[in-house]
Amino acid sequence: MADRINRHTSGVYIIAATPFTDQGAIDHESLRRLVDFYIGHGVTGLTILGMMGEANKMTGDERRAVIDTVLARTGDLPVVVGVSDPGLGNLTNLASYAMDEGAAGVMVAPSAGPAREDRIEGYFHAVCEALGPDVPVCFQDFPLATGLPVSPALIRRLSQERAQIVMLKHEDWPGLTKITQLRKQEEAPEVARLSILCGNGGLYLPQELQRGADGAMTGFAYPEALVQTVALHQAGRVDEAEDLFDRYIPILRHEQQPGFGLAVRKYVLMKRGAITSAATRAPGPKMSAMDAAETDRLMARLEARLADRL
Amino acid sequence: MADRINRHTSGVYIIAATPFTDQGAIDHESLRRLVDFYIGHGVTGLTILGMMGEANKMTGDERRAVIDTVLARTGDLPVVVGVSDPGLGNLTNLASYAMDEGAAGVMVAPSAGPAREDRIEGYFHAVCEALGPDVPVCFQDFPLATGLPVSPALIRRLSQERAQIVMLKHEDWPGLTKITQLRKQEEAPEVARLSILCGNGGLYLPQELQRGADGAMTGFAYPEALVQTVALHQAGRVDEAEDLFDRYIPILRHEQQPGFGLAVRKYVLMKRGAITSAATRAPGPKMSAMDAAETDRLMARLEARLADRL
Amino acid sequence: MADRINRHTSGVYIIAATPFTDQGAIDHESLRRLVDFYIGHGVTGLTILGMMGEANKMTGDERRAVIDTVLARTGDLPVVVGVSDPGLGNLTNLASYAMDEGAAGVMVAPSAGPAREDRIEGYFHAVCEALGPDVPVCFQDFPLATGLPVSPALIRRLSQERAQIVMLKHEDWPGLTKITQLRKQEEAPEVARLSILCGNGGLYLPQELQRGADGAMTGFAYPEALVQTVALHQAGRVDEAEDLFDRYIPILRHEQQPGFGLAVRKYVLMKRGAITSAATRAPGPKMSAMDAAETDRLMARLEARLADRL
Amino acid sequence: MADRINRHTSGVYIIAATPFTDQGAIDHESLRRLVDFYIGHGVTGLTILGMMGEANKMTGDERRAVIDTVLARTGDLPVVVGVSDPGLGNLTNLASYAMDEGAAGVMVAPSAGPAREDRIEGYFHAVCEALGPDVPVCFQDFPLATGLPVSPALIRRLSQERAQIVMLKHEDWPGLTKITQLRKQEEAPEVARLSILCGNGGLYLPQELQRGADGAMTGFAYPEALVQTVALHQAGRVDEAEDLFDRYIPILRHEQQPGFGLAVRKYVLMKRGAITSAATRAPGPKMSAMDAAETDRLMARLEARLADRL
Repeated sequence: MADRINRHTSGVYIIAATPFTDQGAIDHESLRRLVDFYIGHGVTGLTILGMMGEANKMTGDERRAVIDTVLARTGDLPVVVGVSDPGLGNLTNLASYAMDEGAAGVMVAPSAGPAREDRIEGYFHAVCEALGPDVPVCFQDFPLATGLPVSPALIRRLSQERAQIVMLKHEDWPGLTKITQLRKQEEAPEVARLSILCGNGGLYLPQELQRGADGAMTGFAYPEALVQTVALHQAGRVDEAEDLFDRYIPILRHEQQPGFGLAVRKYVLMKRGAITSAATRAPGPKMSAMDAAETDRLMARLEARLADRL
Repeated sequence: MADRINRHTSGVYIIAATPFTDQGAIDHESLRRLVDFYIGHGVTGLTILGMMGEANKMTGDERRAVIDTVLARTGDLPVVVGVSDPGLGNLTNLASYAMDEGAAGVMVAPSAGPAREDRIEGYFHAVCEALGPDVPVCFQDFPLATGLPVSPALIRRLSQERAQIVMLKHEDWPGLTKITQLRKQEEAPEVARLSILCGNGGLYLPQELQRGADGAMTGFAYPEALVQTVALHQAGRVDEAEDLFDRYIPILRHEQQPGFGLAVRKYVLMKRGAITSAATRAPGPKMSAMDAAETDRLMARLEARLADRL
Repeated sequence: MADRINRHTSGVYIIAATPFTDQGAIDHESLRRLVDFYIGHGVTGLTILGMMGEANKMTGDERRAVIDTVLARTGDLPVVVGVSDPGLGNLTNLASYAMDEGAAGVMVAPSAGPAREDRIEGYFHAVCEALGPDVPVCFQDFPLATGLPVSPALIRRLSQERAQIVMLKHEDWPGLTKITQLRKQEEAPEVARLSILCGNGGLYLPQELQRGADGAMTGFAYPEALVQTVALHQAGRVDEAEDLFDRYIPILRHEQQPGFGLAVRKYVLMKRGAITSAATRAPGPKMSAMDAAETDRLMARLEARLADRL
Repeated sequence: MADRINRHTSGVYIIAATPFTDQGAIDHESLRRLVDFYIGHGVTGLTILGMMGEANKMTGDERRAVIDTVLARTGDLPVVVGVSDPGLGNLTNLASYAMDEGAAGVMVAPSAGPAREDRIEGYFHAVCEALGPDVPVCFQDFPLATGLPVSPALIRRLSQERAQIVMLKHEDWPGLTKITQLRKQEEAPEVARLSILCGNGGLYLPQELQRGADGAMTGFAYPEALVQTVALHQAGRVDEAEDLFDRYIPILRHEQQPGFGLAVRKYVLMKRGAITSAATRAPGPKMSAMDAAETDRLMARLEARLADRL
């Protein structure tokens, strides 16, 4: 069984897409292929059933089936499972299922409601109470999607009071200063380290690493770019890391379009052979012929750029 | 079997709460009692699994069980079923189940995403395509909760192009002018009438009726107030309708607090004997002792006011 | 000169409308009449240039002219001046002008930006630094308008660290529990009392007083209702206070419609003779003939209700 | 005098920053130098007093002074003036001043309020009425900042009904499909062309040009990148345009951070000698030492990349 996430987890946890058939059913064959694709490109772990995994359009049975398929394929590779849900009962049930099956931890975003920090704080305490203290939690901080910005002080307070909140999925935007503030807090001896993995498609990954992030938890369709950037950075080859990363920015920023970017991502994954259909579940974004040609062009330009370097 | 909703439906469709036990399970015994309570107070129909029914915290199985229990109890009384869901497949499946069981129609709010009217329009067309033309649809227009304000022109366009969109659950705020605009549009011979039932806890019900609304679709814990107001209004006794209604405003406005109001509503329903526990599902609002005393006071004041009149 | 606001201020600070001519100019004659109207109905103080005073549609010169006219008329009556502005320099300049002219304090809402409490906290510290420690500040907590909900802990922290933050304009919704929480905090000896005056049109004023609020700071066109409710409550005649208040709720809830309510308020003030024109500045809400008739009806109903009691 | 903007305007209208001294005063000397800097880098025109020009933190007098200084320096170069304001009177007055001084047109974003398209449509009609038909208007479509997404149909309707609405500042995100939709509409003979200049820092400029945009209206601190990209594209050298552009993306995406990006932009402009101080007006973003070092690094990397190519 895979190790669980902890306060020192680092590397690249790829946010896995969920492949569907053109008719909208979960395509488990593609899902296995996609897991192999991610593993083949060297990721440290997977995060499944996140926002970009379209979990909110699945039934409970479907979510459990995705967990089954992925965990049967990943072996020792750690898998974090997104369990955010409007209902705490549903959240807890899915988390229990995932942990029993061998997940490395769960990811939770603040529940909908006013952006009052006391409410969000109370929510995470309730989540931890309901999960029990043994389930490692990754706090997903993604205000662009949740509408709920939070201060570093709140994240720290929760992480200090709840030993199980070991990781931050960092995707506030702008968010570079937040990393610096969180790392600065950890200079005090009584403050426990947080693992910080960065999202937002990885758009600022070199800067985030340079400010102390431990890696990436995001879903770029070229996972090797994230993997190599983090590896080079960890090896102290900071400039090389950024040189490599910068070659991918043009297509990465294209994939990073809110909402629509998921269609681009799945299209690229399909073109790269990782999944059979690029379909998203309705109501989800769709690629037009022009969108496809535009993405083809960006892919071809990337390949040419990478070939130059070789 | 009950009649389906149509463009001339009027009266009071009470938004039904979902009773839970203190442990969070659906309390079907209370649900039956609650249905009897509503029927006993003269409602025209029920709307179940709406936002105030906490549907988004239930599993699919639980939603179907609620449909079963309610429809087994309502007989000829029409029941509209809220089917809003982030996934179109889940929405359609629940709608099919509900219609097969004898529901009178389904209620759909715009899906989350940007407030662009072309997107919302496309969404409702996709919903209607997926449901098929025989399922009557109530458009829930509740910007305070969805963050998606829409113009009367959009509602009308959809209702003209999709014969099955027969009803508006009107809860824009302010929204009185919207009713007037919609009724004005209907003076053109090619424009099909829309049934307009008003939400927002009924806070402006007399004004809404005076502007041409057909009744209420909302969830006040004193359904008899809604029923009598609409009945008096329909009988042409406009002043009496408003006199009666005004006596309930103090507690109605207390129940109308966003989010928290659900706890008040369930508390009053419990005190009135309609349900056993006032619990909402986590994360839901909870009543403190002070909240309860405050509501007790408002209930007592209402009773005294009503007694004066007798 | 009037007393400044402090941590024990109580009573009714009426949010003053700004009268315009039908052509959109500030109508200073009406403004004087309106001040007399408010004073004649017994208000404790005035708050000018707030959101409902349409300050954001005025030039700096016009704001200063309003301050001049009002302060020349109010004598010993304290006047709080809304100084919220996207720029801190503009805010400070207007505050200095107002205080020099004899204002009792200034009112500031959080500046636009993400709802991160650390950002809002930093903003109020910057405001206090820029104002200097001698200017009393009222913190306007109005999330429905600002999009910035804040926790009681943040309000308290600011009020403890900045002696000049002496008052809360409370208009969170729901907000009753917030009052209770703030008063509970004050049981600790090191915590300084805050004056809490309630907004939101006064919709929950009796409940707010019963939970420990010091009065109202809001803009109902029947200021005597607010004044008498607070006076009766302060005299320990809690039931009478609520009896009186409840008679006004039907029209109060009509005036409380977001955005549009300002047109209702100005229309009622015009009908009551307090101002000459009900015009709001463009782009502002306008009353249709139907809106006017509807409001006339609500006014007539109120008068009949009040006459019954006499 | 410069030509006015029209439906065929193309090129790069740089969104001009407003330089302030460290004490917060407008630095007119730097403003002149900045104008020269922009002109020296080949821009087609300037847009002043936009959101990134911090116009909302200035007084009316200051805005007029900025207009004076810039128009005295630009000669034949067209200057668009941002005139958005909560009050229609203020908006009109500033627009009149700007046009009298020789501005090429005005830019207006939808006013704050609900995202109902009928409201926004009515607002722009009121704006055009108030401006009179001779003032060319650029519709700023920036939902990330205004919270007001609009459909292409609304933009087109306004542009058809109001001959003066000649230009779209396109910064919806994602927005590529919107350009395609707008250009598609223009295939109908009765539809008048719109000039489309793209914002969002230029993050997708090559794609936008390839879909039919006429250029850029945005504020990157390397205006030459925008100018050369547009020029190469217009010369039919599409690949070269994108090759050139891609070299700038790493720093462009850094400058594109919402809110904070303005501090980066002003810092780079200062380092490039265009302005004396990088200060933004309070409450505005500030660069820490780490932020500065990070930006220095990105600037150095850009210079190295550009040198390689030469």
